[in-house]
Amino acid sequence: MRFEDLNWMDIEKYLAQDDRLMVVLGACEQHAYLSVLSDVKIPQALADSASLQTGVLVAPALNFGSSPYFLDYPGTLSLRISTLLDMVEDVIRSAYRQGFRKFLILNGHGGNDPVRARLYELMNHLEDTRIAWYSWWLSHSVLELAQKYDLKPSHANWLEAFAFTRVADLPQEAKTPPNIPGLMGAAEARQVYGDGSFGGPYFVQEIVMEELFKTALQDVLRLVKFD
Amino acid sequence: MRFEDLNWMDIEKYLAQDDRLMVVLGACEQHAYLSVLSDVKIPQALADSASLQTGVLVAPALNFGSSPYFLDYPGTLSLRISTLLDMVEDVIRSAYRQGFRKFLILNGHGGNDPVRARLYELMNHLEDTRIAWYSWWLSHSVLELAQKYDLKPSHANWLEAFAFTRVADLPQEAKTPPNIPGLMGAAEARQVYGDGSFGGPYFVQEIVMEELFKTALQDVLRLVKFD
Amino acid sequence: MRFEDLNWMDIEKYLAQDDRLMVVLGACEQHAYLSVLSDVKIPQALADSASLQTGVLVAPALNFGSSPYFLDYPGTLSLRISTLLDMVEDVIRSAYRQGFRKFLILNGHGGNDPVRARLYELMNHLEDTRIAWYSWWLSHSVLELAQKYDLKPSHANWLEAFAFTRVADLPQEAKTPPNIPGLMGAAEARQVYGDGSFGGPYFVQEIVMEELFKTALQDVLRLVKFD
Amino acid sequence: MRFEDLNWMDIEKYLAQDDRLMVVLGACEQHAYLSVLSDVKIPQALADSASLQTGVLVAPALNFGSSPYFLDYPGTLSLRISTLLDMVEDVIRSAYRQGFRKFLILNGHGGNDPVRARLYELMNHLEDTRIAWYSWWLSHSVLELAQKYDLKPSHANWLEAFAFTRVADLPQEAKTPPNIPGLMGAAEARQVYGDGSFGGPYFVQEIVMEELFKTALQDVLRLVKFD
Amino acid sequence: MRFEDLNWMDIEKYLAQDDRLMVVLGACEQHAYLSVLSDVKIPQALADSASLQTGVLVAPALNFGSSPYFLDYPGTLSLRISTLLDMVEDVIRSAYRQGFRKFLILNGHGGNDPVRARLYELMNHLEDTRIAWYSWWLSHSVLELAQKYDLKPSHANWLEAFAFTRVADLPQEAKTPPNIPGLMGAAEARQVYGDGSFGGPYFVQEIVMEELFKTALQDVLRLVKFD
Amino acid sequence: MRFEDLNWMDIEKYLAQDDRLMVVLGACEQHAYLSVLSDVKIPQALADSASLQTGVLVAPALNFGSSPYFLDYPGTLSLRISTLLDMVEDVIRSAYRQGFRKFLILNGHGGNDPVRARLYELMNHLEDTRIAWYSWWLSHSVLELAQKYDLKPSHANWLEAFAFTRVADLPQEAKTPPNIPGLMGAAEARQVYGDGSFGGPYFVQEIVMEELFKTALQDVLRLVKFD
Repeated sequence: MRFEDLNWMDIEKYLAQDDRLMVVLGACEQHAYLSVLSDVKIPQALADSASLQTGVLVAPALNFGSSPYFLDYPGTLSLRISTLLDMVEDVIRSAYRQGFRKFLILNGHGGNDPVRARLYELMNHLEDTRIAWYSWWLSHSVLELAQKYDLKPSHANWLEAFAFTRVADLPQEAKTPPNIPGLMGAAEARQVYGDGSFGGPYFVQEIVMEELFKTALQDVLRLVKFD
Repeated sequence: MRFEDLNWMDIEKYLAQDDRLMVVLGACEQHAYLSVLSDVKIPQALADSASLQTGVLVAPALNFGSSPYFLDYPGTLSLRISTLLDMVEDVIRSAYRQGFRKFLILNGHGGNDPVRARLYELMNHLEDTRIAWYSWWLSHSVLELAQKYDLKPSHANWLEAFAFTRVADLPQEAKTPPNIPGLMGAAEARQVYGDGSFGGPYFVQEIVMEELFKTALQDVLRLVKFD
Repeated sequence: MRFEDLNWMDIEKYLAQDDRLMVVLGACEQHAYLSVLSDVKIPQALADSASLQTGVLVAPALNFGSSPYFLDYPGTLSLRISTLLDMVEDVIRSAYRQGFRKFLILNGHGGNDPVRARLYELMNHLEDTRIAWYSWWLSHSVLELAQKYDLKPSHANWLEAFAFTRVADLPQEAKTPPNIPGLMGAAEARQVYGDGSFGGPYFVQEIVMEELFKTALQDVLRLVKFD
Repeated sequence: MRFEDLNWMDIEKYLAQDDRLMVVLGACEQHAYLSVLSDVKIPQALADSASLQTGVLVAPALNFGSSPYFLDYPGTLSLRISTLLDMVEDVIRSAYRQGFRKFLILNGHGGNDPVRARLYELMNHLEDTRIAWYSWWLSHSVLELAQKYDLKPSHANWLEAFAFTRVADLPQEAKTPPNIPGLMGAAEARQVYGDGSFGGPYFVQEIVMEELFKTALQDVLRLVKFD
Repeated sequence: MRFEDLNWMDIEKYLAQDDRLMVVLGACEQHAYLSVLSDVKIPQALADSASLQTGVLVAPALNFGSSPYFLDYPGTLSLRISTLLDMVEDVIRSAYRQGFRKFLILNGHGGNDPVRARLYELMNHLEDTRIAWYSWWLSHSVLELAQKYDLKPSHANWLEAFAFTRVADLPQEAKTPPNIPGLMGAAEARQVYGDGSFGGPYFVQEIVMEELFKTALQDVLRLVKFD
Repeated sequence: MRFEDLNWMDIEKYLAQDDRLMVVLGACEQHAYLSVLSDVKIPQALADSASLQTGVLVAPALNFGSSPYFLDYPGTLSLRISTLLDMVEDVIRSAYRQGFRKFLILNGHGGNDPVRARLYELMNHLEDTRIAWYSWWLSHSVLELAQKYDLKPSHANWLEAFAFTRVADLPQEAKTPPNIPGLMGAAEARQVYGDGSFGGPYFVQEIVMEELFKTALQDVLRLVKFD
C-alpha cells in the first residue's frame, strides 16, 4: 500500500502491528530515450510489488536526486547534495517520530549514494533504528543476470528500458560507450554522452526485463524481512 | 504532459517553443479521513487538467511540505522549512538553466507559504523570470463559491473531499470547529484537532465538488497564460 | 518595560513572578513617504503601550525583516529568509532558557510571515511554550475599522501613517493601486510601485489613526493575557 | 541622522552625495547593574554624536550579538555565531546594492569579533568596498585614558557606566576580579562572575566618563572620514 | 613537493608553468591494529612518491573524513558529511582562484565518497577545471593484484598494513569476516567489528605490499598526467 | 604522542587514565619567505614537545584556517569561517564522545580566533568540558620576551622564522611596516603587504628563537595541567 491510498488512521493501525517502511529515492534526470523519471519509476515499481506481497507500506517517492552532471540536459531537475541529504533526513525523522523503525531505502539513482553518509549519522541519533539500502542495479543477483546474458548494465541502456520507463522508440543499434575523462561538468557531460546513454544495447527482449525485475524483487522481498 | 511521460529530447523540443512550467507543491500530512497525500493530489489534478488544455508541462510533484504541527499524526512526513525552501530553489534553478522562464506554482498546502519568500529572493538572481503562485483554496473565485453554498473552507473538511482524495467513508455529521489557542506544537495540535479536520461538514454533493474543481481550474488556465 | 531599561537582576525578579515576553518583529524597508522603520515603530508602540498597562516585558526589537522585493529602494535592509528565521529562533531559545514561556510576537511586516513556520518547529522542541502571533494590520478588528471608514489597508498608505511614522509631508491625492503581475523581483517592484505605496489615500484624520491604534492595542492586551 | 527618521527618498538623496554608513553592532546581555542593552547604547550614542557633526547616516542597530557564556543570566538574548555573521552580511549586502560603499562598524561587544572574519570574506565579493571596524573600548586613546586614571577597563565595570547605561544604583566598593579558568560555559560563568562585572570600580566620576566618551568620539570622527 | 616545504613565491613560480595539484583526502578513524591515520598516510605516501617523479605539488592533507559508524572506537575523529564537503570545496576554490586547474584527489577513505557529489557541483561553477578522483583500493589494477594473490581487500586487513601504517604487532591468524546487517550505528558497529578489521589476514609479506604500492603508484602517475 | 603513531586500542588505554587532548589549529597561508604551513608547524612543534614531557595526546592537525585576506597569494588555502567552525566542532564532539574532556587548543593563526565563539557554544552542550585556548604569539611571556629584545612580533617577520619554518633565504634588511587602511580584501592586501611580511626584521639570532620557543612551551606545559 502506498501512503497516498491511506489516511492517518490507517497508518496508525499499521503501526500497531508493523514498523517497517519502504522509501523510494529517485531522480528526475535525462535517461536518453527513456522517461526522465526512470530512476523513480523502477524502485517505485519494486516497492509496489513488494508491498503487494508483504503489506509493508510505501512512502511517497522523493522525486528528485542529485544529478549536477546532467544539468545541461533539459528535464534534469537536480537538488544540491546538501538539500537531498536534508530532505531524506527530514522524512526519516518524521516517520521515526510516529513509530517507524525499519527503513528499506529503494534507491534508483547512483548520484544519491551520498545519502548513505547522512543515514549513518542519523543512526547515531535515532535509537533502535534499522536501515537497509538497496540500489537495485548494483545487486549481486542483478549483476549475475547481466553476466548470464553477456550484457553490461549502464545508465539509460537496456538495463533501465522497462515497459514502464519507455516513452519513445529506442534505437536498434547498440551504442559505443564513450570515454570518460574523470569527473565532468554539465557542459562536457552533454558533449561526451550525446543522447545520454552510457552505451551498449538500448533494449533487450521483454522476457529478460521481466526476469530482471523479478530478480530485483526477490532482493527486496528478502531485505524487507529485516531478519 | 507530465515530465514522467517524456524524455529529455521531448522537453528540449518543448523549450524551443515554450518556456512555461507548472510546479506542484504539496504535503504529506494528516487530512482526517482523506488521503495523507491530498495536498499533492489536488494541485496535481489541476495541473494535469490545465496541461491537457494548454500543453504546458508539469514537473514531478514535490511530495513533501512543511507540517511540523501535524507530526504526531502518523503519516505526516514534514520537511524542515529550510529544507523545503532549498528544495524548491534547486528545482527552479535547474529548470531555469535549461530555459524555463515562467513558473506557475500550484500549491496545495498552507504551510508551504514561506516558499514565497525564497522565490522573491530567487527573482533577484534569475533574470527575466516570472513566477505566479496559486494556492487554490485561497482564490477569490473559490471563496465566492464557498459563500454561495454557505460553506466554510477548512483543512480536511468538505473543501478537500474530492472523489480522488477520499480513501475511506466520511462522517455524516458536521464537526464543530475547535478553539485554537495561538500556535500549537504537535502534541497539542493532535489533542485539539482530534480526527484532524478543522471542522464543518466532511463532504458535500459531488456536483459541488465538480464546480469547485472547475472554478479553480479556470484560475489556473488564466494564470498559466502569463499575460 | 523594555529590556533596555533593566539590568539582569530586574529581569530575574520579573521571571520569579511572570514568564511572558513581547517580541517586536519588524523590517527596515521602503514605506513611501513614511519612515523606513515604520514596521518596527508600530508594533513597538503597541508593545510599549501594552507593557505600560500590564507590566509585561518587551524584548529589544528585531530591526530587520525579509523584504527582497524592495531591495532596489534605498534604505531597505533585508535579511535572507533563512537568517531571519535563525535570528528569531535564537532569541526565543535564549529567553526560554532563562524561564520565559509565553511569547507574544508583535509583527509589523507581512514578509516576516515565514517566521511562523520556524516557531511551529520550535514548539516541538521547547516544552510548555505558548506562542501567539499578532500581525496587527490583519486583525479582525482592524479590518472592521477599515471597512467602517471605507478604507483599504495597504503597505505605506494611510494605514501606517501614524504621527510617529511620518517623517515628511504626505501627498494630498490618493494613489491608484498598481496592477501586480505575480511575484516581482526588486527591479520590477520599484518600477511598478513607484513611490512605494500600494495605493489609496496617503493619510486620514489623526482621530482615525488614534482609533486604529486603540483597536490594535485592545487585541494586544487580550492576547498578552494568554488565557 | 538615523534611518528611522528618514524615508527612502531621503536616503536616495543622501546616496547621490555620500556613500558612507555607520552600522551599530551590539549585544543584549548581562551587564551587572547596568542596562542589558549597554553594548548597543554606547556605540549608538557615539554614532548619533558623530552623525550630528558629519551628517553620515546611521543604520538601525543590530540589537543582538553573540554571548553564549552569559546565557544563564536572565535578559541575555544571544545569537548563534553563524546567525550573527549572516545577519551582518545581509545588512551590508543590502546597503551595498543601493550604493553604500564605506562602512564604519561601531561595535559594542567583544563577542562580536568573529564578524570581522565574515566582513573579510565579503570584501572579496563586493568591489570598491571599504570597511572600518571600531571596538571603542580597545582603542589606543581609550586605553591611554584608562591608564591616565589608573583604571582597568573591563566588562560591566566603570568603563561602561555612562549616565545612559545606568538603570540602578551601583555598588560603592570596587570588586575583586575573579580568576578565569579558560573558556567557560554559561553555568560556570554565572558562578564565577556573580553579579556579572569583571571587577574593579563600578563607576567613576561623571567627568571622567564624559572625557571617555569624547575620546572615543574623536576616534569615530577620524575613522568616518575614510581618508 | 609538499606545500609545507614551500613559500608562496615558490608556488607562484610553479603556477607559471603548471596548474596541477594533488589533494590528499583521508580520515582519522579506527583501523584495528594499524594507525588511526592510515587513511591519510597511504594516499600521502602515494602523493609524495608521485610528486618526486613528476614535480606536481601536494596540498596539505585533509586529516579528517566522514566515519560516523566508527565513532565508538576511541581515536575516530569524524566530520559531519556537510562539513567535509564544505572543507573540500573551500580548498579547491582557494587553489582555483590562484590558478590551479587540474586536481587529482587522492582519497584514502571509502566514507569520503560523497565528496564527489560536491565536486560535480563545483565543476559547474569553476570553468576549465579538471578533476580526477582516485580511491586507490578500488582501482582495477589493485583488485587484480589482490586476485592474483587470492586476497580480499578490506578495511584494516592486510590491504592497509604497510610498513608505514603499522604501529603495533599484528595477529597471526586471519579473522573471519563478520556478518553486516545493513547500515549500522556506531554502537552496533563496534560490537560487530570487534577489533575493527573487516576480516581476512591482518598482513601479508612485505614484498606483496611493495608490489601493491607500486601498482597504485602507477595509477597515480598515469592520472596525474591529465591527458 | 601523536594520534598517527597509535591505534584505537592505544587511545582507549590512554583514556582509561587521562582525558586531555591537545588540538593543533593552523592555517595554510602566505608567510612571506617562510613555509605556507608555518601556522601549523609552530603549534605542532609546541604540542609535540609538550607531549614528550607530559604524555598528553596530540590530535592530527587541522591544516586549514580562515585567511580570506590572503587569497591572492598563491598557496593560501582558506576555509570559509563557517566551515572552520564546523570542522572544529566536529573534531571536539567526536573526541568528547569517546571520553576526552579537557581540550588545549594550540592555535597558530590569528584569523582562527572566531573559533572561540563556537567553543563557547559547545561548552553549553558538552557537560564537564574544559577548554583552554592558546595563541602562542599573544602570550604575556612571549610579548615580554619580544620587549626584552626590543622586537615587534608580527605576521611572517622574525617572530615566526624558526629553523623549522624557514624554506628559503631571508632578506637581511628589516621591512618598514605598511600602513593598514581598515579591513582589506585579498587584492588590496596583496598590494599593501607586498612580500607578505607585516614588517620588521625577517629574522633574529637562532638563540633568541630557541628562547622564544622555550617560553611558549612553558605556557603550554602550564596550561595542559588544567589545574
